[in-house]
Amino acid sequence: MIVALAGGVGGARLADGLARCVGGALTVIVNTGDDFEHLGLHISPDLDTVMYTLAGIANPATGWGIAGETWATLEQVARLGGPDWFRLGDKDLATHILRSERLRRGDRLTEVTADLCAALGVAPRVLPMSDASVRTVVHSGAERYPFQDYFVRLKCAPPVTTLHFEGAAGARPSPEVEAALRDPSLAAIVLCPSNPYLSIDPILALPGIRELIGHAGAPVVAVSPIIGSAAVKGPAAKIMAELGVRPSATAIAEHYRDLIDGLMIDTVDGELAHGIEAMGMRVQATPILMRDVDDRQRLAEECLAFAGELRRGVG
Amino acid sequence: MIVALAGGVGGARLADGLARCVGGALTVIVNTGDDFEHLGLHISPDLDTVMYTLAGIANPATGWGIAGETWATLEQVARLGGPDWFRLGDKDLATHILRSERLRRGDRLTEVTADLCAALGVAPRVLPMSDASVRTVVHSGAERYPFQDYFVRLKCAPPVTTLHFEGAAGARPSPEVEAALRDPSLAAIVLCPSNPYLSIDPILALPGIRELIGHAGAPVVAVSPIIGSAAVKGPAAKIMAELGVRPSATAIAEHYRDLIDGLMIDTVDGELAHGIEAMGMRVQATPILMRDVDDRQRLAEECLAFAGELRRGVG
Repeated sequence: MIVALAGGVGGARLADGLARCVGGALTVIVNTGDDFEHLGLHISPDLDTVMYTLAGIANPATGWGIAGETWATLEQVARLGGPDWFRLGDKDLATHILRSERLRRGDRLTEVTADLCAALGVAPRVLPMSDASVRTVVHSGAERYPFQDYFVRLKCAPPVTTLHFEGAAGARPSPEVEAALRDPSLAAIVLCPSNPYLSIDPILALPGIRELIGHAGAPVVAVSPIIGSAAVKGPAAKIMAELGVRPSATAIAEHYRDLIDGLMIDTVDGELAHGIEAMGMRVQATPILMRDVDDRQRLAEECLAFAGELRRGVG
Repeated sequence: MIVALAGGVGGARLADGLARCVGGALTVIVNTGDDFEHLGLHISPDLDTVMYTLAGIANPATGWGIAGETWATLEQVARLGGPDWFRLGDKDLATHILRSERLRRGDRLTEVTADLCAALGVAPRVLPMSDASVRTVVHSGAERYPFQDYFVRLKCAPPVTTLHFEGAAGARPSPEVEAALRDPSLAAIVLCPSNPYLSIDPILALPGIRELIGHAGAPVVAVSPIIGSAAVKGPAAKIMAELGVRPSATAIAEHYRDLIDGLMIDTVDGELAHGIEAMGMRVQATPILMRDVDDRQRLAEECLAFAGELRRGVG
C-alpha cells in the first residue's frame, strides 16, 4: 500500500503516475482547505482535480476541470447577474450539485467522494483529509482572504503575510485517513509536488496527522514542487519569497525536514543535494517536470524505487 | 392594470399575448404548487415557463425550458449515478442555482423572481402566488404522488382520485399578489387557459384569494383550456374524466362558475354558449388555439375587449 498526500494539479499528476504503478493499492489523501461554498454549492477543487485526473477526464491544458467542458450554465448565471469569476463547467457542475445535495442530507464528504470515484471508475482510494470543515485563509497585512478569493478572484496578487487553516485545530483526519496511515502494509508515504504552504500544510495542520505519518513505519518521500527557483505551476515561489524564504529545493527540504526521509529534486538542482543531505535526509535528483503521462509514470516509479531504498536503509 | 392567473405553457402563452397588448401594465400571478426540491435545487416549473416565455427565450417546441438548450450537466449527473428523469437544461440550471441560493439566504421567492425577470428584461410583473410553500399532491387510490413525480416521472399515468394542495390552508397570497388584486385601476382579471385542477386551483386554494378576486371590481374572464372534448395540452381532459367530469367547455364553466363573469370558448364549441350563459356568465366563442405569437396577441386582444364589454355591462 502506498499513501500520497496531494493538493491540486501537480499532486494529482504524480498521484496518477503512482496509480499507473500500483493501481488500487494507492490511497490519495487530499487537501480540502481550498473547499468553499459558492452559489450554494460545496466545491472541493483539489478533490475534484485528483478525481478527474485519476479518472482520465481532466482537462490536459489547465490541469483542473474536465476535458471538453462547456460553459452554458455559467454564462447564463452571468446573464442573470450572478458571479462567474469561479469557472464552473457544465459537466463539473454535476459533481458539485450531487455532492452538495448529499452533504446537506448528512452524508460525509469521504462517502460522497468514494461514490463519485466509483462512478468515474477511479481505482485508487481518494480521501478528503477530513470530513470536518478546514478553510485556508490568506492573511495579507490587515486583509484576510478566503482561499478562493485569493487564489482565483484575486489571482494570488495580494502578498501573503501568513496562512491560517481555520477549523484545523478542531478537525480530525477522517477515520479512513487514520486507517490508511496505520495500515501495517504501508510501503511508502509520498508528499506530492503540490504547494507546501497551500496544499500540503493544511493536511499537516490536522491534529495527530504528523504523528500518524511519523509512526507509520514507512519511508516518507517528498517530491519538490520547485525547479531552480521557480514553481512548476502556481504561486509557490511567489509565496515563499513573500514569507521571506528563498524559493529552492533546499527551502522545500527545510520546510519538510522533520517529516521526510527523502526528497526528490530536479536534475538542475543536483548541486543542492549535498547541503540537503546534511539536514539528515536522502536526496535523489531526477527530471521532476511531468509534461505527459509517461513522465508521471516514470517519476512515480523512481519515487517508489527511492522509497524502497530508504526502507531497506531504515530497516 | 390587468391581472392574469397562470400555470405553465398555455397560461404563459396567453400571458405573453397580454404583455404584447399592455406591456408592463400586466401582473401575472403564477401557480407554485408544482414547485419542488430536486438535486438540492428549488425548482419552480410554472414560474420559469412564464418567465422564459415573457422573456422570449422559451423553447417554442416544448413550451417549457429555454430555446437552444444543452444538457451537459444532466448527462454528467446521470453518469455519476444521479437522477435525470426531470429534464434540467444547462441554461435553465442557472435559474435554479441562483434561486436556490437566494432562498437559502432568506430572500422571498417574490423578490428572487423579480430580480430574475429584471435580468431577463421581462416587463410585466411575474408574481409567485405565495412566498410560502404549497405543494400539489396527487392522490391515486391509496397512493400519494408529489406533483412532479406524477407529472414528469410517471407521465400522468396514475388515475387521479383527488388533488391536495399541501400547505395551502396555512399559506397566504404574497403581499404583492394582494396589492395587485386590490389595485383600484384593475381593468380585468384573466384566468389563463391553464389546467384548472393542477394550475389554477392551487392559486384559488390560498385563503382569501377568491374574496380578493370577487371584490376586485374588475370583470373576471377565463379562457377555456378545453377545445371540443380535448385539452389543448397536458392531462386536463384525462384528469376531468378520472374525476367523473365530462371534459368540455361547459365543465370549465361549471368549475369556475362562482368566480368568473365571462368565458372564452373555442368556435367549435359555439353550440355550448347558450347552456353556459344560463349559468349566469357571458360567453365569447373565438379560435382559442395559440399556434404562434400572432395567435397569442389576437386572443389577448379579444380577451381584453371581452372584459371591456363585461365591465361596461357590470358598470
